[in-house]
Amino acid sequence: MIEKTIARWHELLETNDQSILDELLADDVTFHSPVVHTPQEGKEITKLYLASASNVLGNGDFRYAREVLDGNNAVLEFVTEVDGIHINGVDMIRCNDAGQIVDFKVMIRPLKAINLLHKKMGEMLQQLAGN
Amino acid sequence: MIEKTIARWHELLETNDQSILDELLADDVTFHSPVVHTPQEGKEITKLYLASASNVLGNGDFRYAREVLDGNNAVLEFVTEVDGIHINGVDMIRCNDAGQIVDFKVMIRPLKAINLLHKKMGEMLQQLAGN
Repeated sequence: MIEKTIARWHELLETNDQSILDELLADDVTFHSPVVHTPQEGKEITKLYLASASNVLGNGDFRYAREVLDGNNAVLEFVTEVDGIHINGVDMIRCNDAGQIVDFKVMIRPLKAINLLHKKMGEMLQQLAGN
Repeated sequence: MIEKTIARWHELLETNDQSILDELLADDVTFHSPVVHTPQEGKEITKLYLASASNVLGNGDFRYAREVLDGNNAVLEFVTEVDGIHINGVDMIRCNDAGQIVDFKVMIRPLKAINLLHKKMGEMLQQLAGN
């Protein structure tokens, strides 16, 4: 079920074509950050968080290392390096029966990486939200 | 493939029968903690980490919220509460073709939870390693 959604997700990352993201995210999508407990509700705030994450993590080192797809759920494990710190994380994606993403959760390890992300994502969110 | 392994994993958690863990873990299993980058190699150290995690997280509130199984990989998402802090995490499990676990990785969110775990796991590892 979620295979097509994930194929489109990879196209988004390759092309950076934001119309794919608009098409992929359901209007009532929920985003769960690795840093904060409270979920972020809705398409606009989710796009803001995904853009921030992409700016912070999406350098030349970023690659997916493992994909686990099952029904309407996908877990994409990634690795990258930012400022010399190893970052390992997961994008946990749930889609509805139309293949749109309704839930997007990110977890990060190890502790050093989450502390770095906390700092960088905060700065990036302020920058992007200010534009 | 991994379905049987995960069924046994749940039996382990229900019964706390450590012979199941002995049977489930491959001798060359690698454990990846949510806190530290460096992997822990081998069955004995992995058992120590899993016992510590079980002692810290495995209270009455612990439950699995989502399971994503695909081929030799499983991702089990859990939620619990420790000292009033919401903890959300994943057990990422890979097994070999014999159904034995060869790789066990844990990630935790949000930041408050990983900071709490860091402190509690450190204390628990010292206690268990000292016995």
